[in-house]
Amino acid sequence: MPQTLPVLFLTDFGRMDDFAGVCHAVVAQRAPGSDVIHVTHGIDPQDIVQGALMLRNTLPYTPIGVHVAVVDPGVGTDRRGLAVACADGRYFVGPDNGLLVPAIQMAGGATRAVSLESAAHRIEPVSPTFHGRDIFAPAAAHLASGGDVGELGPDVSLESLVTVDVPGASVERGALVGQVWHVDRFGNVALSIDAETLHGFLSGHARVEVQVRNDRYFAAVSDTYANVREGGLLLLIDSYGSVTLSVNRGDARSMFRLASGDSVRISAC
Amino acid sequence: MPQTLPVLFLTDFGRMDDFAGVCHAVVAQRAPGSDVIHVTHGIDPQDIVQGALMLRNTLPYTPIGVHVAVVDPGVGTDRRGLAVACADGRYFVGPDNGLLVPAIQMAGGATRAVSLESAAHRIEPVSPTFHGRDIFAPAAAHLASGGDVGELGPDVSLESLVTVDVPGASVERGALVGQVWHVDRFGNVALSIDAETLHGFLSGHARVEVQVRNDRYFAAVSDTYANVREGGLLLLIDSYGSVTLSVNRGDARSMFRLASGDSVRISAC
Amino acid sequence: MPQTLPVLFLTDFGRMDDFAGVCHAVVAQRAPGSDVIHVTHGIDPQDIVQGALMLRNTLPYTPIGVHVAVVDPGVGTDRRGLAVACADGRYFVGPDNGLLVPAIQMAGGATRAVSLESAAHRIEPVSPTFHGRDIFAPAAAHLASGGDVGELGPDVSLESLVTVDVPGASVERGALVGQVWHVDRFGNVALSIDAETLHGFLSGHARVEVQVRNDRYFAAVSDTYANVREGGLLLLIDSYGSVTLSVNRGDARSMFRLASGDSVRISAC
Repeated sequence: MPQTLPVLFLTDFGRMDDFAGVCHAVVAQRAPGSDVIHVTHGIDPQDIVQGALMLRNTLPYTPIGVHVAVVDPGVGTDRRGLAVACADGRYFVGPDNGLLVPAIQMAGGATRAVSLESAAHRIEPVSPTFHGRDIFAPAAAHLASGGDVGELGPDVSLESLVTVDVPGASVERGALVGQVWHVDRFGNVALSIDAETLHGFLSGHARVEVQVRNDRYFAAVSDTYANVREGGLLLLIDSYGSVTLSVNRGDARSMFRLASGDSVRISAC
Repeated sequence: MPQTLPVLFLTDFGRMDDFAGVCHAVVAQRAPGSDVIHVTHGIDPQDIVQGALMLRNTLPYTPIGVHVAVVDPGVGTDRRGLAVACADGRYFVGPDNGLLVPAIQMAGGATRAVSLESAAHRIEPVSPTFHGRDIFAPAAAHLASGGDVGELGPDVSLESLVTVDVPGASVERGALVGQVWHVDRFGNVALSIDAETLHGFLSGHARVEVQVRNDRYFAAVSDTYANVREGGLLLLIDSYGSVTLSVNRGDARSMFRLASGDSVRISAC
Repeated sequence: MPQTLPVLFLTDFGRMDDFAGVCHAVVAQRAPGSDVIHVTHGIDPQDIVQGALMLRNTLPYTPIGVHVAVVDPGVGTDRRGLAVACADGRYFVGPDNGLLVPAIQMAGGATRAVSLESAAHRIEPVSPTFHGRDIFAPAAAHLASGGDVGELGPDVSLESLVTVDVPGASVERGALVGQVWHVDRFGNVALSIDAETLHGFLSGHARVEVQVRNDRYFAAVSDTYANVREGGLLLLIDSYGSVTLSVNRGDARSMFRLASGDSVRISAC
């Protein structure tokens, strides 16, 4: 008997409803013995950009498997459902709204993509609001069991996949500007600025001014919390290489009332 | 060696305490190799009706296995603990308070039920407040390993199982009235009205008036969010067939301050 | 092929970020086939005492395996990372800040401890803020696969392990005083007083006065919620033997606005 592949979920389902557990159960029903890994179900509801970045960032830490990603405000419209095979052996399953694309690139690029239209690999009748359960989990089970991606539906051209604009950093009036893309449990605020860009901009300055809306604050640039006094503000490179606004043993989100999409300006001083 | 059955949990334990993880660990200790699926631990605390409906609704999407359900305000009283074998091969383990009954019916009905009184299949001393860990998880591990249900305790008559009143729909002064039984992460408010009942009542009207307490709102009847403008109110058939009060890309719970048990009135217009 | 050991996580990562899922994925990548059990990720952020007590309390309910515990305010400083082998066959992996010590004692004591310094068993470059992913999970995967603990780094003396002060009970001016160390989903407030100490102090009184800050309340001493009227206050022995301040079908945390570290005074009456 061939080995099954692990199935890895990344969604905005949260952990308090049945959504994540039922998708797990569908995989267990159709691909018994598959390992299921819940990478996260905590993507902010319908935040495609956050999901796309988290899927890409976590990828190097995951085993080769079938990655199911669902952040899907367009569920029930005519947006396509996709299964994509990649050069490194991974599969991605999810909506065609850009969510999968940065991770596909990190996986060596797509070698084949199909539109999930095969009724034989869906749970019928398909709910217009829960494709995770009725389309994506069954497709993942098929692939995890060694099934052929081509059986899931017709091929689509790799160029036709919908892409998403990932926020980056810019320099405006002498300041480095990034957007908030994620806030974690500890209140650390991840910005769309990578470590290299920050260090290039600062060229050695270890102390910066951070501007949020009209307020300005001094912050240290550090690679650990511990270099800063308790309650001190710092710009930290987080574990995925994003510049993060943090408070040592405190909560930067609450202090600055920041949410995804907000801008933060950084100046050397 | 015989295969183990998967063990599936549905509880009101939440995900932030150790309750769910410890029950998982007890199963792993006593039935090594069993797959454990956390269908949900997010049932509202002590809401037996919500748990019973969620257990029944999710059942068709789960593999044949041992279903442990715990929503148990009577823990530590003389309410019985049950293991129930069903016609389709499933087992249900949990308190005798009605929680299991709708799912048992969906599983083809009970063929045998026992009261969990065997000291050999408990963790002694049994905590009066955590039967999930000390009685239900060990019983599930026994069944998952292929153990006989009769070893868990004396048979009880199938007629003696406690039942629970599941809320339904009624017509009052020209309006279709249902109760809220669940609210999900996205703020969708599930009502005790099924799709057929709604469509029969409306007989083709696609626009309705919804009354919550003394306030009235217009809503569209739709099968996807996408048919309605952003922020628009709709009555949607959710993925389990319940009529759901939803706001496209919004949060109906917050808008209407609704919780389990509240009434909602629907009129055609 | 040798069997793998299960890997059990207990952290303050929460369930809404990717931290827990990524650690799971790293174990799956490096020790395929290992069972992973998430005992809890709900320890209050950076509360080492709470983590240490929860790790110890839950231990008897877990299979022999590799226990990864991460509550780590000192991440990125020169505090050591440890792998500890115990007399009963368990391994503990985590920071050297006292978190592991009470559990090690319950596991029969340490037989060997090493400092996690082997670059071959880390994910390089190691993030200064996420040793769970880059150091502890890879070390756990190594041990779960049957790898030798000595390969993970140099031996450290068992006497050199950092310990933590676990709060206890004291008698002050005729009252039994304990500290809050945990509050669960249901609002039950666990105190640093064990059942024996309470019963010795009360010597048969079943009714007590509880003092929180300057306010006093009557409470019943009971071993189940059900012995008390709805809304009634009680001192309950919880499922790990801690004295717990609870409200039958209510929420003692909200009623008393208590958090970890707060004191509660109990007098017989």
